[in-house]
Amino acid sequence: MRITGVTVTPIAFRDPPLLNSVGVHEPWALRTIVEVHTDEGISGLGETYGDIGHLTRVRKAAPALAGVDVHDLNGLRARVEAALGGEVGSDRHGLTGQLTLESTVDRVFSSFEVATWDIRGKALGRPVADLLGGRVRDAVPYSAYLFYKWAGHPGVEHDGFGEALDPAGVVTQARMLVAEHGFGSIKLKGGVYAPHLEVEAVKALREAFPDHPLRLDPNAAWTPETSLEVAAELDGVVEYLEDPAPEIEGMARVAAGAPMPLATNMCVIAFEHIAPAVAQGAVQVILSDHHYWGGLARSKELAAICRAFGIGLSMHSNSHLGISLAAMTHLAAATPNLNYACDTHYPWNSADDVITEPFTFVDGAIPVPTAPGLGVELDRDALARAAEDYARCGIVQRDDTGYMRQHDPSYERKRPRW
Amino acid sequence: MRITGVTVTPIAFRDPPLLNSVGVHEPWALRTIVEVHTDEGISGLGETYGDIGHLTRVRKAAPALAGVDVHDLNGLRARVEAALGGEVGSDRHGLTGQLTLESTVDRVFSSFEVATWDIRGKALGRPVADLLGGRVRDAVPYSAYLFYKWAGHPGVEHDGFGEALDPAGVVTQARMLVAEHGFGSIKLKGGVYAPHLEVEAVKALREAFPDHPLRLDPNAAWTPETSLEVAAELDGVVEYLEDPAPEIEGMARVAAGAPMPLATNMCVIAFEHIAPAVAQGAVQVILSDHHYWGGLARSKELAAICRAFGIGLSMHSNSHLGISLAAMTHLAAATPNLNYACDTHYPWNSADDVITEPFTFVDGAIPVPTAPGLGVELDRDALARAAEDYARCGIVQRDDTGYMRQHDPSYERKRPRW
Ligand SMILES: [Mg+2]
Ligand SMILES: [Mg+2]
Repeated sequence: MRITGVTVTPIAFRDPPLLNSVGVHEPWALRTIVEVHTDEGISGLGETYGDIGHLTRVRKAAPALAGVDVHDLNGLRARVEAALGGEVGSDRHGLTGQLTLESTVDRVFSSFEVATWDIRGKALGRPVADLLGGRVRDAVPYSAYLFYKWAGHPGVEHDGFGEALDPAGVVTQARMLVAEHGFGSIKLKGGVYAPHLEVEAVKALREAFPDHPLRLDPNAAWTPETSLEVAAELDGVVEYLEDPAPEIEGMARVAAGAPMPLATNMCVIAFEHIAPAVAQGAVQVILSDHHYWGGLARSKELAAICRAFGIGLSMHSNSHLGISLAAMTHLAAATPNLNYACDTHYPWNSADDVITEPFTFVDGAIPVPTAPGLGVELDRDALARAAEDYARCGIVQRDDTGYMRQHDPSYERKRPRW
Repeated sequence: MRITGVTVTPIAFRDPPLLNSVGVHEPWALRTIVEVHTDEGISGLGETYGDIGHLTRVRKAAPALAGVDVHDLNGLRARVEAALGGEVGSDRHGLTGQLTLESTVDRVFSSFEVATWDIRGKALGRPVADLLGGRVRDAVPYSAYLFYKWAGHPGVEHDGFGEALDPAGVVTQARMLVAEHGFGSIKLKGGVYAPHLEVEAVKALREAFPDHPLRLDPNAAWTPETSLEVAAELDGVVEYLEDPAPEIEGMARVAAGAPMPLATNMCVIAFEHIAPAVAQGAVQVILSDHHYWGGLARSKELAAICRAFGIGLSMHSNSHLGISLAAMTHLAAATPNLNYACDTHYPWNSADDVITEPFTFVDGAIPVPTAPGLGVELDRDALARAAEDYARCGIVQRDDTGYMRQHDPSYERKRPRW
């Protein structure tokens, strides 16, 4: 079964004003939906980033895939690599680490790779989790992903999610997400307020949810010294501290003194980062993410590396929709050593999903789809609307910092900030 | 498609008197042929060790597989693990390292796992290499595997391969293997004679084959000090030195001073050995072997680990027949970073193969089978004969040392010996 063509559709969907260490989410988040077509009439889906640089690379690679057999992941990746011609992407929004040549290829390759799993699953009549080695769990637990947030985007009084700018607001948001979706773990995106205020929020969460595993992720907003102070404050409170300080070296300094494991989706974001991180003992948990680790097969390889080196494995998320959630769920289902609840932004964005049956959390988990392939179908009307929204919204490159500056011209991007 | 049963057949085949650091090959080598049957009438093949301890574990695990879906590798391995009940195997013949709980499971799991790839490939009409991510080479290069050897087993004047007890004999053997099979790389099994004699043999090979990559493998017969002396002697002569000294610590001492990469199939033989080996910089090349790394999927995981840590990847062999060679070839074909010619004992044993069309080397390589599954079929008559030979030969546990002692009662197993 050979690839005959690829349809690439950039889309936009509404996003609440979620705060983070580089600014605040704009009213529209971007994604790219990829459909890979074959000569046997079966098509497969993938979802990836929507920023213009990445989108351009996806569009550059897509025509090069024609003729490749859908089993031939090695050949597919080689085609992508050749099409990109050595280009290295850059992280313009500032929330992940520095891309490398290899990881630039992996990012572009990923959504195509996912689509081939969808195709092969459909052809065989088997869910993707089966093809990945078989599911070891029937439902994949996700964590409530809390954000400091404005009540609404400027001009909107209340967006349905409400304001969260202090410990009480954070706890209210957590209660809402836990009540609605049943989450059994809670993560707070930090790096927004001074560390002692975020510590206060985490402690308020601990009080309100005595049995929920908690995490805090300031996106490297702190120096190693500040990180160590926070770590001491949160001893016994969080299951892991995520990216407190920048770079492998900074994380290693924190890890040497922190009582809890350190997790990352910033200093280890490509295979070549793993060896130095291991050598320095910088991280105890890696947040995998098939969107930048090169798809599902390579994410399983990352899991094997974590298993071999005694590194914990969790899962990272960016603003995404249901095709991504399906892929994340199949992957997580078939990864025995994924030993933490996965992150997901889905509750913030699911109202604008482009699949026919958006996912619903059951007790904080997504039941692993049992239909062939990823188990999701495009809602063509919703996709068309989201494509129009992309064309109309005027955003082609996520810029949390720029958006924040519109409202606070004195705002500066700074890492570490405290 | 679910497993309905497993047929386990221990076999014996003729083996020449190949010398190594623990003695000499007995007249019969043992293997176990595994056939996994499914409810859709498709069966798959696997080949594994024949020693009684392992055979007993394979037989213990086999009945536990009934009902497992052939895609569910996670479930299959869990069944094997449960059936073995925490038993840890032992390396009685002394040519590999110490087994662990996990690697005992991986050894037993492996032949079943290979059989499921064969089944899935047959069901799909695709060669196994396709299911492993697609072949990156159309033929897999193997190395000529030279052994010091007697002219024949006691009582046999000449076994067709002839004697090789000195540099001239080794070169003659190399010429024979290279002429017959076209090998482009040469490995000498050492650890038999005093190191300076083996260095002499390698230098004689270099003279006779100026362009062939060369390797020497004394199976940890040397102290680190001796190893460093040999390494200095062979600087620029061998592409890697294989297991000169015992244990990760010993290898690390050698690696610190040796000018060439060190390879191993002895001190890193399970996933849990990798982290300490990396931490100590003990090995620069790992010889993968799906028979003990837990099958094809886990061998690909090993390859990913090697890729991420900049460790070279080669492939190890024990005395084996064509089912193993097929699996090795599919795996190697789909592993981009397998950057050395693979080892194989096949030329020494292929006359007794139990498949209908034994393999032939073309320019030292095996063309990747393109038929569905592994692409090999059992020759039922040959299998029956080999099973009779097993029953008749009286050997149930390889014992190179005991066999050597029958001919030289003063022979002692000693590691390191020099
Ligand atoms: Mg993070
Ligand atoms: Mg060896």
